[in-house]
Amino acid sequence: MKSALIASTSTIHGSDYLEYLMDTLKTHFSHTEEILFIPYARPSGISYDNYTSLVKTAFSKIDKTVSGLHAYDNPVDAINNAKGIFTGGGNTFVLVNQLYKNNVLLPLKAVIESGTPYLGTSAGSNICGLTMNTTNDMPIVYPPSFKTLGIVPFNINPHYLDPIEGSTHMGETRETRIKEFHKFNTQPVIGLREGSWIEVKGKSIILRGQLNARIFFYNKAPYEIKPNTDLSFLK
Amino acid sequence: MKSALIASTSTIHGSDYLEYLMDTLKTHFSHTEEILFIPYARPSGISYDNYTSLVKTAFSKIDKTVSGLHAYDNPVDAINNAKGIFTGGGNTFVLVNQLYKNNVLLPLKAVIESGTPYLGTSAGSNICGLTMNTTNDMPIVYPPSFKTLGIVPFNINPHYLDPIEGSTHMGETRETRIKEFHKFNTQPVIGLREGSWIEVKGKSIILRGQLNARIFFYNKAPYEIKPNTDLSFLK
Repeated sequence: MKSALIASTSTIHGSDYLEYLMDTLKTHFSHTEEILFIPYARPSGISYDNYTSLVKTAFSKIDKTVSGLHAYDNPVDAINNAKGIFTGGGNTFVLVNQLYKNNVLLPLKAVIESGTPYLGTSAGSNICGLTMNTTNDMPIVYPPSFKTLGIVPFNINPHYLDPIEGSTHMGETRETRIKEFHKFNTQPVIGLREGSWIEVKGKSIILRGQLNARIFFYNKAPYEIKPNTDLSFLK
Repeated sequence: MKSALIASTSTIHGSDYLEYLMDTLKTHFSHTEEILFIPYARPSGISYDNYTSLVKTAFSKIDKTVSGLHAYDNPVDAINNAKGIFTGGGNTFVLVNQLYKNNVLLPLKAVIESGTPYLGTSAGSNICGLTMNTTNDMPIVYPPSFKTLGIVPFNINPHYLDPIEGSTHMGETRETRIKEFHKFNTQPVIGLREGSWIEVKGKSIILRGQLNARIFFYNKAPYEIKPNTDLSFLK
C-alpha cells in the first residue's frame, strides 16, 4: 500500500530540523530501522556527505540509521532495496537533474507506488507532484525534463506564502505565479504552508498539520481548505 | 554601436507603467518613432494584443508608435527591420520558450549587437544576461534551453530583494539562491533593485538610477556598488 508523507518544509521557524514531524515519522517508518536518504537537492550547495550527516543526526532521535544514496555504486539497486526513503529539500532543479542523470526517477516512482514508505520535504515534496512546474526555486541548472513522480495527481507548491500586506515590491505574488501556471497547464495545485503535509495511504490523500492549505484549480478562483480535508477531489 | 537599457522593472511602486524611465527613453529611442514590442512574456497570462495595447499607451506619451511582434507573419524580418525594440516583463520561461519556438533569439541578439536600440524590463532584462538561470520566475513551461542573449557578459537578477528582517519564512532568500547558483555556475550576477537599470553604449556598461546594486562573484562575498559605477569589471 502506497505510504508517503509530502511536507511543505523540513523545518518550521524556531524548531530543529524535522522536529515538528518526529512523532509522525516514528509511526511512518515503524517497519524499518534504516532510511535511504536522497541528498541530491543540496540546500545552499552543501555536499552530499554533509547533508546526509545532518539527516543522520535528526533520525538518530527516533533510532533510525541513515545512508546517503550517493554512497552506493548502484543507486537503482539502493532504491529497490530500501525499506524507507527520504528526499530532503534544497533546489528542485538540481534534485530533478540528478534523479534523471542517475536514472532513479522511474525506480523511485515504482517503489513508492508499491509501498516503500516515503518522506519528502520541500524539493523532495515538489517531485511528488505531476511536474515540477510549480517550484519556487531558482533554475540554477537545466534538467532534462520538468516531469516528476506523480505520486499524487496534482502539483505541489511548498513553502506557500500569502501576499505580504503593504508590500511595495513589484515582483509577482505566489498566487499570481500559480495563476500564470494555469494559463499554460490544467492540473490542480495545492499551496502547502510551512507546517502542513499531505499524508498518502493507499488511495487516501489527506491534508495534515494545523494550517489551512490553498487550492488552485484551472479556471476557478482559489480557495482555502482545512486540516484533515480529504484531497481525493484534487485531480 | 550597441545601445541597450536593461531595467530591473517596468514599474516602480506608486508610479505608472515605464513612467520613471520616460525621460531616458525619449533620448534612447530619439532616432525612431516606431517601437517593435515583444509581448511573449505575458505577465499574468494576458494576451499579446492586450499587452501591446498597454505598451502603446505608455509610449504614446513620448510620441512613439508601437507594434507587437506577434502581429507579423515573419517575426525574423520584423526584428531585422525594427528601428527600436522593447521586450516587456512577465514570465521568463514563457518568454524564452517563445523566442526559441519562433527562431528569433539569434536574430534579436544580432540586431542588438549591431546597434538597434533595445529596452528590456524584468524578464526582458533577464534575457540580456548569458543565461536565464538567475530569473525569479516560476518554471511554468519548459523552454528548449536556458541560454539567452548575452548582451552583457554576466547574469542578471531583476527585482533584487534584500532579506526581510525578522521573517519567519523558511524559503531561501534571494542572496541564498544566487549563492546556490554559484555552486553550479561561474559567471558573475548583478542583483538589480527596482528603479535601477544598466545602460549599455558600445563597450561601456554603467549602472543607472538612484540605488545601489549587489554584485555576486563566484567564490567571493557579495558586495554593494553605487549608481553610475562602470560595470566592465563584471565578467
